[in-house]
Order: sequence, then structure tokens, then C-alpha cells
Amino acid sequence: MPSSPRRPALIHPPPEDFTVLAILHALSDPTRMTVVQTLRASPECACGTFPVEVAPSTLTHHFRVLREAGIIRQREDGNRRWTTLRGEDLEARFPGLLDAIVGAYEGTRPVALRRRRWGGGR
Amino acid sequence: MPSSPRRPALIHPPPEDFTVLAILHALSDPTRMTVVQTLRASPECACGTFPVEVAPSTLTHHFRVLREAGIIRQREDGNRRWTTLRGEDLEARFPGLLDAIVGAYEGTRPVALRRRRWGGGR
Repeated sequence: MPSSPRRPALIHPPPEDFTVLAILHALSDPTRMTVVQTLRASPECACGTFPVEVAPSTLTHHFRVLREAGIIRQREDGNRRWTTLRGEDLEARFPGLLDAIVGAYEGTRPVALRRRRWGGGR
Repeated sequence: MPSSPRRPALIHPPPEDFTVLAILHALSDPTRMTVVQTLRASPECACGTFPVEVAPSTLTHHFRVLREAGIIRQREDGNRRWTTLRGEDLEARFPGLLDAIVGAYEGTRPVALRRRRWGGGR
């Protein structure tokens, strides 16, 4: 099946165009952070399979922010869009940055969830 | 001189309320990143002394974002407002995070400046 002419080509910046500020902005949103966490656990995901609760158009926006920051790569395959993390490109450009950020986020996330569910404690 | 009743009290969240997402958002702006870089070099700065080119009201907004994320602390002293980095609080809450982010930013910043000034090269 030929690709639809209505879909614009996906733009993926080269690693030398990645900026720390764009990466921080991209990761400062809980939905986008969930996308990144999902991709760190699964090498390639189809677009409808991310564990996020947002409208498809909103998710499309989040993917664009992540793509333009250099964090994810997407490819079309018929009617499906597949997403991967650009882990090697990010690591080459900013060694350790993604691990530091996602590690800090995951290190505190369980505590926050626990508090919200059971109303406090230690 | 008594403090002015027109100025609301400055709110500084306790470290347990810091979130990675708010910190990433706060640091995703070049003016706010410059404030943080300045404070890493100087322990305490008066508000008019930061090397940023924005209107005072805009800078006030940037300070608020940084304050509410837990990144800076501000105190009033007569007509002056003094700003410090909450480096120890940040380090205790998210060890290594601020260093990783600012380090990545500073590691690439000189290259970007060089390109802009001399139009390319290696």
C-alpha cells in the first residue's frame, strides 16, 4: 500500500542539532515521560499501544515534541506508525543525560504514587 | 525599614514537594538556565545583577518558576531581593540531577556560540 500523500514526512533532527533545552522541555510533561519510559522497556512500539490516557490528537502533538527534540524516531508502515527511542544518538550527544533524568523521575515516582493512594505515611 | 505589605510572601516548597517534571520545565528556558549558571558561580546575587536581557517583569516570572520548582531561594532585604541556589536541597532530593543537566548544557554551549559567531566550521 503506497504511503498517503496527505501525511507530511516525519522530521528527525541530526544529533548535532539536539539541544539540552529542547530535551528538558520534551521530558517535562508526564505523558511524554511515560512514552520515553515505555520505549526504554520495549524497543519499538506501535502508536496505539502506549499506556497513556490522552486523545489521539494530543498524543500526536506529544510525539512531535519528542521527535523534534531528537528523543524518538518514528516510521510509517502502512497505516501504522512505529516509535523507537533514539537512545544511542542521545547518549552520543549528551552522555548520561537521559539516564540521569529518567532515573531521578523513576526514583521518586513510586513514593508519589504511594502517598496519593494511601494518604501519607513515611 | 519594615517590609512592604504589598509584596506577597515568597513561597519555597519543601524538598519532598520538588518534582523532576517541574525542575525540567524550569530549566528548559535559556534565561532561567542562565540564572542557575550564575548562581552556581556566585553564592548569592541581587536581582538586578543577572546577565540576562529580559524585562524586569519577565525576570520576575522566571524567578517564580525557579522558586516554585525548588531551584532557587529568594529573600527580601529592604528594597533588594537576594537569590541563592538551593543546591543542597536539590542534591538531597535528586542526587546528581542538576549537575547532569547543567553539565550537558555547558558542554555544548560553547560550540553553539562559536557556530553562531563564525558561521560554521568543524
